Amino acid sequence: LVLKKEELKMIQEKPIRIIGSGVYLPSEISSDEIEKKYNLPQGFSERHSGVQSRHHVTFEDNGYMGARAVENALSNAQLKLEDIDLLIAASATFDYPIPNKASVILSQLNVKSNNNIGTIDIDTTCLSFVSAFDLASKFLDGILYKRVIIVCSEIASKGLNPSKPECLTLFGDGAAAFIIGYDEQADSRFYAGKLQTFTEGVEYTIIRGGGNKFPIKDYPYQPDLHSFEMDGLKLLRLAKQKLPEFIASFLDKLNVSIEKIDKIIPHQASKAGLTILKNAYSFKENQVMENISTHGNCIAASIPLLLHQSINSGAIKRNDNCLLIGTSAGFSIGAVLFKF
Amino acid sequence: LVLKKEELKMIQEKPIRIIGSGVYLPSEISSDEIEKKYNLPQGFSERHSGVQSRHHVTFEDNGYMGARAVENALSNAQLKLEDIDLLIAASATFDYPIPNKASVILSQLNVKSNNNIGTIDIDTTCLSFVSAFDLASKFLDGILYKRVIIVCSEIASKGLNPSKPECLTLFGDGAAAFIIGYDEQADSRFYAGKLQTFTEGVEYTIIRGGGNKFPIKDYPYQPDLHSFEMDGLKLLRLAKQKLPEFIASFLDKLNVSIEKIDKIIPHQASKAGLTILKNAYSFKENQVMENISTHGNCIAASIPLLLHQSINSGAIKRNDNCLLIGTSAGFSIGAVLFKF
Repeated sequence: LVLKKEELKMIQEKPIRIIGSGVYLPSEISSDEIEKKYNLPQGFSERHSGVQSRHHVTFEDNGYMGARAVENALSNAQLKLEDIDLLIAASATFDYPIPNKASVILSQLNVKSNNNIGTIDIDTTCLSFVSAFDLASKFLDGILYKRVIIVCSEIASKGLNPSKPECLTLFGDGAAAFIIGYDEQADSRFYAGKLQTFTEGVEYTIIRGGGNKFPIKDYPYQPDLHSFEMDGLKLLRLAKQKLPEFIASFLDKLNVSIEKIDKIIPHQASKAGLTILKNAYSFKENQVMENISTHGNCIAASIPLLLHQSINSGAIKRNDNCLLIGTSAGFSIGAVLFKF
Repeated sequence: LVLKKEELKMIQEKPIRIIGSGVYLPSEISSDEIEKKYNLPQGFSERHSGVQSRHHVTFEDNGYMGARAVENALSNAQLKLEDIDLLIAASATFDYPIPNKASVILSQLNVKSNNNIGTIDIDTTCLSFVSAFDLASKFLDGILYKRVIIVCSEIASKGLNPSKPECLTLFGDGAAAFIIGYDEQADSRFYAGKLQTFTEGVEYTIIRGGGNKFPIKDYPYQPDLHSFEMDGLKLLRLAKQKLPEFIASFLDKLNVSIEKIDKIIPHQASKAGLTILKNAYSFKENQVMENISTHGNCIAASIPLLLHQSINSGAIKRNDNCLLIGTSAGFSIGAVLFKF
């Protein structure tokens, strides 16, 4: 990347390195099975959401999947829990309203340590991994914070409305964890992150019930109130309107065009959402990574799952410049740019 | 503070300054009213929880209170929303499971801006403000992040079990917001923060129902399942065991004893919890601030509410060294030390 001189100071390139990653996926469930279960026409899922199969929990909860992903990331990085300074849970769904997700995941690890690391939750719904990576890259300093683990464990399948076939077929469950460290010896770099919220879309993606607005005590279960609700058309319109400007303002400062970035890891929001991004630019083949057809939209776990798979398959190599980008409930757009 | 030479590098004193703050409190409700309503003996609340009165929402929700606190903080700091780079919602309770709390609060502000700042949630339950302050102090740099606003808006009153009088009388609702900035001209300093999680206490403070572990769909409202549950005795035992060691290891590095710190702002967990802290050290009069008798335990809003009140009353003056410290569900202990 060639940085504009006046922006050099803004960017503060930091020697931040992805050290390792791990995932946990529950059982696979095909679109055929879901279509039969809910009496949907055959092929509905692929036509509407582009999803052929995804994973749904059977016995697992968020804590279980998150703990397994953390253990796999530690093993992949050949590190122990003592080597980690902070555990960040970055997701939207949870086992319990209290305590926070990160402490529940830490409590379920089979590996133990004596240093009692802290546990923090960061939530920007689908962008939680992107936000956590951005913040971690800012506070990792090689002194107080050498390495953090960011874990995204999401269960979407329990919050779906049986009368909304688009949602039933779109969402998947899963967990992914990344260990990110400050390493002055490494060629890896964190370039920049950006997050913007457009509150005109605050209700376009929502679960209305279960909090203080519609307490469980006064509002018994109703599918419409307690399920994930998405105004797909309004969301797409807003994304289409805001995304190009967001990308331009983010990348202009770095003096790079999105077409020059080695790998783009977009949030797997929906087939239509991915199409907006792909149609707006002239990407090369295999430049924009995807796993929506085999995993669906796994909320905050989508980006780190896809990043993990892209690294493991060799699609992303050391020194590749990578862009994580997506939209989330709120309505927010977020991105980070780094050299792997 | 006189820093040990070898620790100087660790501490990274930063010119972080609290620029302004604001609060929102719903209607006051006396212990007498609660005791009458739930048929409790007169004086029960003060005896058991040390609370004479607290505030409980009537028409307000988390978003409403948070938005008013943010507006009051902006007005107190004589700043506009455009002057803020990020809005962090730091709390445990929420209006909706999705989207995140910060975007809901931003959407309810009467002041608007064109810069579409980002909105992030940080959750370490009762320590959320402490964690958000700690992280913000690390990523504020005067360039990318000049000023952030941290808002804690908590409604405890809707999650209480009518058969648990200790909880009914202990908890209060309220919101507080702080604007924190990087300012090289200021004498203010951020010294250090620390967070540790002791997962043996992960279930000592919990709301079991309403998430993926006990989904609303399959588990209709039951007071025991959907209310805040606290094993007070086990919590106190764990706090008593871990707190002194935590404080020693945190402050030893800074070469300061807790008795030399100008003002201590502890989380207002409970009368008994505050007593553990006060009995363990020889504090001067008015060195440890309290508002539990007039506000109860307001979860993550307790510390910023008390900090705001201590600043406004003149109890905390510029250049005072202040320690925010507390325990939270998880079980975690956290602290930050700064010069106001």
